[in-house]
Amino acid sequence: MKRLLIIGIGAGDPDHLTLQAAKAIAATDVFFVVDKGEVKHELVQLRQDLIQEHGRPPYRIAEARDPERDRSAPGYTAAVEDWRARRALACEALIAEELAEGQTGAFLVWGDPGVYDSTLAIVEEILERGNVTFDYEVIPGISSVAALTARHRTSLTQVGRPVHLTTGRRLAEQGATADDLLVMLDAHCSFAGLDDFHIYWGAYLGTPDEILVSGPVADVGDRIRRLRAEARTRKGWIMDTYLLRRTDPADR
Amino acid sequence: MKRLLIIGIGAGDPDHLTLQAAKAIAATDVFFVVDKGEVKHELVQLRQDLIQEHGRPPYRIAEARDPERDRSAPGYTAAVEDWRARRALACEALIAEELAEGQTGAFLVWGDPGVYDSTLAIVEEILERGNVTFDYEVIPGISSVAALTARHRTSLTQVGRPVHLTTGRRLAEQGATADDLLVMLDAHCSFAGLDDFHIYWGAYLGTPDEILVSGPVADVGDRIRRLRAEARTRKGWIMDTYLLRRTDPADR
Ligand SMILES: C[S@@+](CC[C@H](N)C(=O)[O-])C[C@H]1O[C@@H](n2cnc3c(N)ncnc32)[C@H](O)[C@@H]1O
Ligand SMILES: C[S@@+](CC[C@H](N)C(=O)[O-])C[C@H]1O[C@@H](n2cnc3c(N)ncnc32)[C@H](O)[C@@H]1O
Repeated sequence: MKRLLIIGIGAGDPDHLTLQAAKAIAATDVFFVVDKGEVKHELVQLRQDLIQEHGRPPYRIAEARDPERDRSAPGYTAAVEDWRARRALACEALIAEELAEGQTGAFLVWGDPGVYDSTLAIVEEILERGNVTFDYEVIPGISSVAALTARHRTSLTQVGRPVHLTTGRRLAEQGATADDLLVMLDAHCSFAGLDDFHIYWGAYLGTPDEILVSGPVADVGDRIRRLRAEARTRKGWIMDTYLLRRTDPADR
Repeated sequence: MKRLLIIGIGAGDPDHLTLQAAKAIAATDVFFVVDKGEVKHELVQLRQDLIQEHGRPPYRIAEARDPERDRSAPGYTAAVEDWRARRALACEALIAEELAEGQTGAFLVWGDPGVYDSTLAIVEEILERGNVTFDYEVIPGISSVAALTARHRTSLTQVGRPVHLTTGRRLAEQGATADDLLVMLDAHCSFAGLDDFHIYWGAYLGTPDEILVSGPVADVGDRIRRLRAEARTRKGWIMDTYLLRRTDPADR
């Protein structure tokens, strides 16, 4: 049997790695790298550093190119699914050709594999296609959600209150659906206008480029927009996330 | 200046500990232990094991008794806040009396400190009272949310869809508020009747007693209720959490 490990590596800081993840990396024969293109090379670099630090030789690194996702496509979900299908094919080929029976292969996944990441769906899709068989295990990781709240020294949840994890797209479409919201994948500062909210914003969390801003949206919104645009231009890419908390919650 | 570390230790598995948390434990002079009573002694034990494994002598352990929270009180939030105020007093005394200037004290927090935990609010309350001053830092941890989804090898989030993190009490009061829900702090199996949902349930995650059940609520709900009651009787306490995912999501 082939064995696959889906390893959460944390959201930017190499010390986010868990002992379990470090042991999993040490147990891996072949690391599968699906190249994210040229832009976010620091993300690729973190993976390489972790492999070098915790991998136990002899191990191999097998690379596939990540198919481009068309973000401007009319149906976002459809575009993701098409991209995912092509990525599944690339990964299936890697597992079929680069991993021998009895060996352990690994995907190093940014943050936590359960939070807005496609690797688990891809693995399920490969298994459903049935061309290769393998056993697999998932190692949880520090998500950017946990990284954000820790750096702001605040809680994701309030006593007895729910929190909605959502995307920038959803927030833009639906507005604030709760008194507490955690927003990811937002390319458009969709917090604009939410003037009865406090925002805890973080970019490049856990990395040397980390930026943190918090305050009432009405006061700090413009500053976040400016800092975000500047950083994105300077580095060529950005990853940011934020917590919104209603300042004076409606009667619940 | 006194320095305080709020360290997330993961949700049950000692290997959930991050390298950052291990280093923080090694940097600690005084560990503050707020006794959770006699019942959940395995939880106390995990903390002790982690201190023994990663602590760097000489360190001290300073204990305070955890004030009882009255769960039957009329207002749950009010009861929590009263309990929290008394706990803040106990912690303030520990920091004032047991930690010298220039020393580092630590609270080891179950899971992630940002997920339904009161330690951060208590620290803020102590600082606001102004009787002791200190600097503090929060170290993120693997939450039971990340542990649950990893063990079920499933994702917390679906592509482009939100997920609601909520409590058993809220679920019982409001019903399913989304197609994807993560439920914590549920003493009453409040998933009953949600027959168009798939459930991924986990108890004692990451520990040798771990129990996992998944399937349509209509099929596995009774089994979960029975297993939960049995385990709770056998061990005297239980910690469980679950993900609900609508089987056939309404048009979104
Ligand atoms: C495809 S999702 C992957 C999330 C990842 N699995 C996790 O657990 O954080 C990418 C989004 O995560 C957030 N993100 C990930 N890493 C981040 C970081 N270091 N700083 C800020 N946001 C981050 C951003 O919202 C980004 O748009
Ligand atoms: C007071 S909250 C603390 C949560 C913790 N800070 C975290 O990040 O998981 C306690 C609730 O967390 C969940 N929980 C914590 N650890 C768990 C475990 N090992 N297995 C199952 N559920 C757990 C249960 O829902 C429990 O009622």
